[in-house]
Amino acid sequence: MSQPQNAISPTREQDFPEWYQQVLRAADLAENSEVRGCMVIKPWGYALWERMQAVLDGMFKATGHRNAYFPLFIPLSYLEKEAAHVEGFAKECAVVTHHRLEARDGKLVPAGELAEPLVVRPTSETIIGAAYARWVKSWRDLPILLNQWANVVRWEMRPRLFLRTAEFLWQEGHTAHETAGEAVEETRRMLGVYETFARDYLALPVLTGTKSETERFPGAVDTHCIEAMVQDRKAIQAGTSHFLGQNFAKAADIKFQSRSESVEYAWTTSWGVSTRLIGTVIMAHGDDDGIILPPMIAPAHVAILPITPKEDTRADVLAAANALAAGLANERFDGRPVVAEVDTRDLGGGIKNWEWIKKGIPLRMEIGPRDLAQGTVAISRRDRPHKEKTFLPVAEAVARVPALLAEIQAGLLARATAFRDAHTRLIDSRDDFYAFFTPANPQKPEIHAGFALTHWDGSPKTEERIKTDLKVTIRCIPADGEPGTCPFTGKPSARRVVWAKSY
Amino acid sequence: MSQPQNAISPTREQDFPEWYQQVLRAADLAENSEVRGCMVIKPWGYALWERMQAVLDGMFKATGHRNAYFPLFIPLSYLEKEAAHVEGFAKECAVVTHHRLEARDGKLVPAGELAEPLVVRPTSETIIGAAYARWVKSWRDLPILLNQWANVVRWEMRPRLFLRTAEFLWQEGHTAHETAGEAVEETRRMLGVYETFARDYLALPVLTGTKSETERFPGAVDTHCIEAMVQDRKAIQAGTSHFLGQNFAKAADIKFQSRSESVEYAWTTSWGVSTRLIGTVIMAHGDDDGIILPPMIAPAHVAILPITPKEDTRADVLAAANALAAGLANERFDGRPVVAEVDTRDLGGGIKNWEWIKKGIPLRMEIGPRDLAQGTVAISRRDRPHKEKTFLPVAEAVARVPALLAEIQAGLLARATAFRDAHTRLIDSRDDFYAFFTPANPQKPEIHAGFALTHWDGSPKTEERIKTDLKVTIRCIPADGEPGTCPFTGKPSARRVVWAKSY
Repeated sequence: MSQPQNAISPTREQDFPEWYQQVLRAADLAENSEVRGCMVIKPWGYALWERMQAVLDGMFKATGHRNAYFPLFIPLSYLEKEAAHVEGFAKECAVVTHHRLEARDGKLVPAGELAEPLVVRPTSETIIGAAYARWVKSWRDLPILLNQWANVVRWEMRPRLFLRTAEFLWQEGHTAHETAGEAVEETRRMLGVYETFARDYLALPVLTGTKSETERFPGAVDTHCIEAMVQDRKAIQAGTSHFLGQNFAKAADIKFQSRSESVEYAWTTSWGVSTRLIGTVIMAHGDDDGIILPPMIAPAHVAILPITPKEDTRADVLAAANALAAGLANERFDGRPVVAEVDTRDLGGGIKNWEWIKKGIPLRMEIGPRDLAQGTVAISRRDRPHKEKTFLPVAEAVARVPALLAEIQAGLLARATAFRDAHTRLIDSRDDFYAFFTPANPQKPEIHAGFALTHWDGSPKTEERIKTDLKVTIRCIPADGEPGTCPFTGKPSARRVVWAKSY
Repeated sequence: MSQPQNAISPTREQDFPEWYQQVLRAADLAENSEVRGCMVIKPWGYALWERMQAVLDGMFKATGHRNAYFPLFIPLSYLEKEAAHVEGFAKECAVVTHHRLEARDGKLVPAGELAEPLVVRPTSETIIGAAYARWVKSWRDLPILLNQWANVVRWEMRPRLFLRTAEFLWQEGHTAHETAGEAVEETRRMLGVYETFARDYLALPVLTGTKSETERFPGAVDTHCIEAMVQDRKAIQAGTSHFLGQNFAKAADIKFQSRSESVEYAWTTSWGVSTRLIGTVIMAHGDDDGIILPPMIAPAHVAILPITPKEDTRADVLAAANALAAGLANERFDGRPVVAEVDTRDLGGGIKNWEWIKKGIPLRMEIGPRDLAQGTVAISRRDRPHKEKTFLPVAEAVARVPALLAEIQAGLLARATAFRDAHTRLIDSRDDFYAFFTPANPQKPEIHAGFALTHWDGSPKTEERIKTDLKVTIRCIPADGEPGTCPFTGKPSARRVVWAKSY
């Protein structure tokens, strides 16, 4: 089937990984830099991140957290303190060994070797733990509820824009508590914040649960996560919230005098989401015309496209376009003014239209000399076929925008939920499970089956065998469920768990 | 003279550098980490930075800029391209040479040596230039007007919290233009933004001008700056705006087809302010009781201090304190709701009072059982002696807050302006100049003279001699001024320039 000339090539069906690269390029969200694995986030992509930051930051503050900032560099010796953390985590990272450059034969060479190498933070449990150890003396100093917005670096051998990059942007919450109960409650609260944010803002119906031991954050007692299904039916871990027990407190020596005057280690948590959310949104909602942004996080809601074929009507059309933008700014969506971008570039209406389609803006409004004469405007929705237009009187169009945005937002969530449900199966036999995760079409190994809800005996060995056979892992262990029998070993199972291929 | 027990020790007069360390500690703004030169910015300090970011970000967007994000790492070869930049700048920096850690004898050691070392960005002209070279093909692609909020690293041998740290937070604007004229205009526009921000938000009456060749940003054609005087009468360079000519465009190969179809190099600018602004505000406005925050950038405007000596009135007092905060939130200052912090900790009123004095919050409101009975509240201003209280009926107190904040803001600017003017001298002879910059009291070499407006023959040699003799440099060359004679050489001078010791 032929695609319209302006759409994305290849289609999702033809080659999902390549479609992803192409929609990012077409939307001008980000690109690879010449520094291996490090991306350049372009203005439209960064504006999307700023919207996500603003919403999340408000949610963190509403739950009692404040922001702070900790060093980029971690002394090597800090990483050595938490054995499980080092073993499972801190291996692929950027290591600073020198603090000076010297010119030699017209070249710059590293000089000033450091006595102790520094690691560029892959995550900040250890460096923040060192600060908390200084700050916490008594139970009165607890809880500490901080968040940091920062860049982190994890050397990636197979980088992929937004999903897996050497440097990425994220937030990391780090809290310290008097009791295990409070820390567990905090871990769950922040998981709830992420779930709400994913559903209400990103239109992503995520599953929640805990990780199995093998998938857990190294050093954590329990890792809670939100898992999204994207359109190639793989899972993306979109956010995590870790209950760290006293492991990191012991490594960093975060001790306090308790109410009963004994000396105790604090109970800590950490939780984070990253620019990976952008990749998740693109993969979950995009279509063969480009990306589709949920209105609740779109940097702008409406692209106003003045059509100015003739010089003599040009000024009037541009004035009408600006008036339209001003009118929209008086409307509210999610309590904020509706944001319109007036695209005044002197390009054909078709070209401008396609650019905004590819950028995923929720609504487009064309206004040309004929509309001006009739007092109308043509509205197109990003979630409907690109040729569909509704002509409305200007005032009516403006007034309808908030409702249209809400409709698009709800529609995206409904569509993603239906998609997930259509590709989630309760499976009770080993054969069905293996059949489900074996590509139906060997020519298209990148189209996956989806989620399987299947019993599991709780053994890492069972998990390992399935991973080896099928590259399928347990994405999360839901909080609730009925007991049953593990189809792989015949042993008892506490509940069904969610299996899938994943990013 | 004895200081109140709770005030800062030493006083500014006794030991200004140590006073600075102590006010930062007392205000809980930031502290040194165990990583050399890297600071931890604590919540109150970070909230101050967030306020500065929010205001500046709005000003940047209002002048047509958008945000983006570029890699943390710069390949060594990029730095080699702009000779003057390397020579003058990129020497003390963090160098990443390995991308993996390996365990050996229970220790972690760097492994996976990189083919080309990477430098942690000290500033991003070279890496952003590489991106612009990819993006710019035609004059139609110009201008590019981007800003980045980021961390940067410059290895500092004598770090000092906020003023000079190895890692610091900043924004860096980077723009590319079709013509020299447009780039110069952009450089001046952003200098104007900084000057306005310093005056209207930070209450800092900065001087503006250009840098002499020796003080210029390496690789720049012209460096414009804002210079503030702080209370030890030294200058702090608080922001810079660079016209880079075609130097960086040539190094990075940012070329475009011009309107006349010739191939031209773009004209670029860069401009930045950093967390150094926090240090500048503290040194400019603080007193011997602690820091003083200008209301326009204070993270909170009012500390509400419930006094709850007796259990039976405690609930009523706390309810009144919360009602007061809610009432204040309905008032507006600078178009935003007035922000109050209710300090419900069960500590004595004196202790709480002093904590908020030291944190520099503009207003404090005490409310206790007696106030409750009388329907009053006691207001104290941070810019007045700490014992001064005004008792007002609650509704009147609330209604007066915006005017009080405006008064404090204006008062800080007026005081800083008077201070600067009192310590700025027109000097026309070499002897007077040398006398002015020789410490009056050799026991207190850290109390400096101030600014001297003195003619200069334009020669780097003259400047160098004075720097060697007195550690005094040209802080800026004002845009306007009358010609005269250089008192150091007798040669003609185009105008007076501003001389001072500096941070």
